[in-house]
Amino acid sequence: MKGVLVSATLKLDEVFRSAFAAEDASVELLMPEEVDDPATIDFALAWRPPQGVLKRYPNLKVICSIAAGVDNILADPELPDVPVVRMVDPEQAEAMALFVIWHVIWYQRRFDLYLEQQEAQVWRRQPQRSATDTTVAVLGLGRMGSVTAQRLAGLGYPTLGWARSPRTLEGVEVVSGGEGLETLLARADVVINLLPLTAETRGLLDGALFARMKPGAYLIQMGRGPHLVERDLLAAVDSGHLAGASLDVFEQEPLPPGHTFWTHPRILVTPHCASDATADLVAVQTLAAARAALAGTEIPNGVNKTDGY
Amino acid sequence: MKGVLVSATLKLDEVFRSAFAAEDASVELLMPEEVDDPATIDFALAWRPPQGVLKRYPNLKVICSIAAGVDNILADPELPDVPVVRMVDPEQAEAMALFVIWHVIWYQRRFDLYLEQQEAQVWRRQPQRSATDTTVAVLGLGRMGSVTAQRLAGLGYPTLGWARSPRTLEGVEVVSGGEGLETLLARADVVINLLPLTAETRGLLDGALFARMKPGAYLIQMGRGPHLVERDLLAAVDSGHLAGASLDVFEQEPLPPGHTFWTHPRILVTPHCASDATADLVAVQTLAAARAALAGTEIPNGVNKTDGY
Repeated sequence: MKGVLVSATLKLDEVFRSAFAAEDASVELLMPEEVDDPATIDFALAWRPPQGVLKRYPNLKVICSIAAGVDNILADPELPDVPVVRMVDPEQAEAMALFVIWHVIWYQRRFDLYLEQQEAQVWRRQPQRSATDTTVAVLGLGRMGSVTAQRLAGLGYPTLGWARSPRTLEGVEVVSGGEGLETLLARADVVINLLPLTAETRGLLDGALFARMKPGAYLIQMGRGPHLVERDLLAAVDSGHLAGASLDVFEQEPLPPGHTFWTHPRILVTPHCASDATADLVAVQTLAAARAALAGTEIPNGVNKTDGY
Repeated sequence: MKGVLVSATLKLDEVFRSAFAAEDASVELLMPEEVDDPATIDFALAWRPPQGVLKRYPNLKVICSIAAGVDNILADPELPDVPVVRMVDPEQAEAMALFVIWHVIWYQRRFDLYLEQQEAQVWRRQPQRSATDTTVAVLGLGRMGSVTAQRLAGLGYPTLGWARSPRTLEGVEVVSGGEGLETLLARADVVINLLPLTAETRGLLDGALFARMKPGAYLIQMGRGPHLVERDLLAAVDSGHLAGASLDVFEQEPLPPGHTFWTHPRILVTPHCASDATADLVAVQTLAAARAALAGTEIPNGVNKTDGY
């Protein structure tokens, strides 16, 4: 089998090449400029592919996202009509859960103030807020959201979750629909976004939503940049309505130098690093998808292109 | 009943007065200067009592620490011969566990670098380290240590615990004795101190112990200041052998202005704030102890003064 990595931002590094070689030494994984005959390419590994590039491979059987999200691939209006697959990594969900937990405790226990106090050599104990007094809410109960919600519940946080349709999740109060979202926003001290990016969720984190959040609440945005209306968040934080926000994803990535978020005292910026699938897992799942596509059997972790996840 | 608060550092505030009043309106809780006749005092609530002050109350039946630690009370060489009681608060152990978890993730996911990068407006993803690659070890498996170890294990960290004698704790590999400590230090990426302060544990965190820790390991010191030989920690961090440390307790508290820890780039300082018993719980448990002492029945949460906990 032969595959190509199509990405505006990533190159094939040794980690990826050796992960694929370890999984199947007969597989060739190439960069587009290394491909002599596009007709020989069976599968594509993609991340933010430049528009129109994937259609250059006439015998492509499957396109695999390098991560859980596929919005960056479905955004190509000239996308070839082949199955699109996403990575599903249990460890990735665990990594996300820990990353989110860190931000929840940062807010709950006022580590923002403790770090400032160390800087100023000030010894002052802040009022202790318990987990049971800190209601958290996870938007999106896919693999990442479910694991994150359950880990938070296991640590004693009253935990709400917002799902597309009613369901049960142990330890988590699941709500759904527009009414469910209202309930959740009215009660949550911390709102955590782990939704997939779809036509329905684009721009969901806007001024209207922030206005329905509790005064002093906190946003943890781990979904996709276009979920968030950035100027509305700034207004909500600067007015004092929201206590602040932790942002891992942005409308434009890398976040441009000089962007207000970099220097805002109540906004934490991380470089879209909350959780990655490992190269080994990407190799295993991509090759499984490519083999199934070639054999004409059911492709694991295929996405519904209409729903977008 | 009548009680007195004896402390070099705390005064009776409204929170404490009203917690005691809510629990039993007939109880009088006073500061020493408000006591007309010392013979009327039945119980003392103490925290860092000045030496020799507690013996002024001839009919004292019990001395309650305001927290889990009693070393600050047993340090009084003129301590009256009455039972000493400590607070046991399940919520306090949960608060400690979350506080520790925050520091573990800080180290594991390199939030130190991410905060520096935001300051410098640098977008750079650090290599992702998983919980399963981060072995944590808890020294001391009392209430705080046990809960902390179990919460860490529940989040996927391989977890070791060091106890005085062999025991079992679900999800935690318990070791004991000098040999157990060697094993633990050789394997742990993060060492968390939650020991009580006793003659045997004083100065345990010294250069010899740091030398047996793994290169690049991290210390989370949540026990008592005198567990740590401060200059030895500085040497171990400055040499690069240890990655850094999070310190909540100190030889001298408040940590004096100008102390090297305040400005050290790889040491996090917090003001002995990891976890407090709530005023309500202190009121309930202190009055239960005082009632039992007056009635001559068994006193809950009494400490063994020889062992020191």
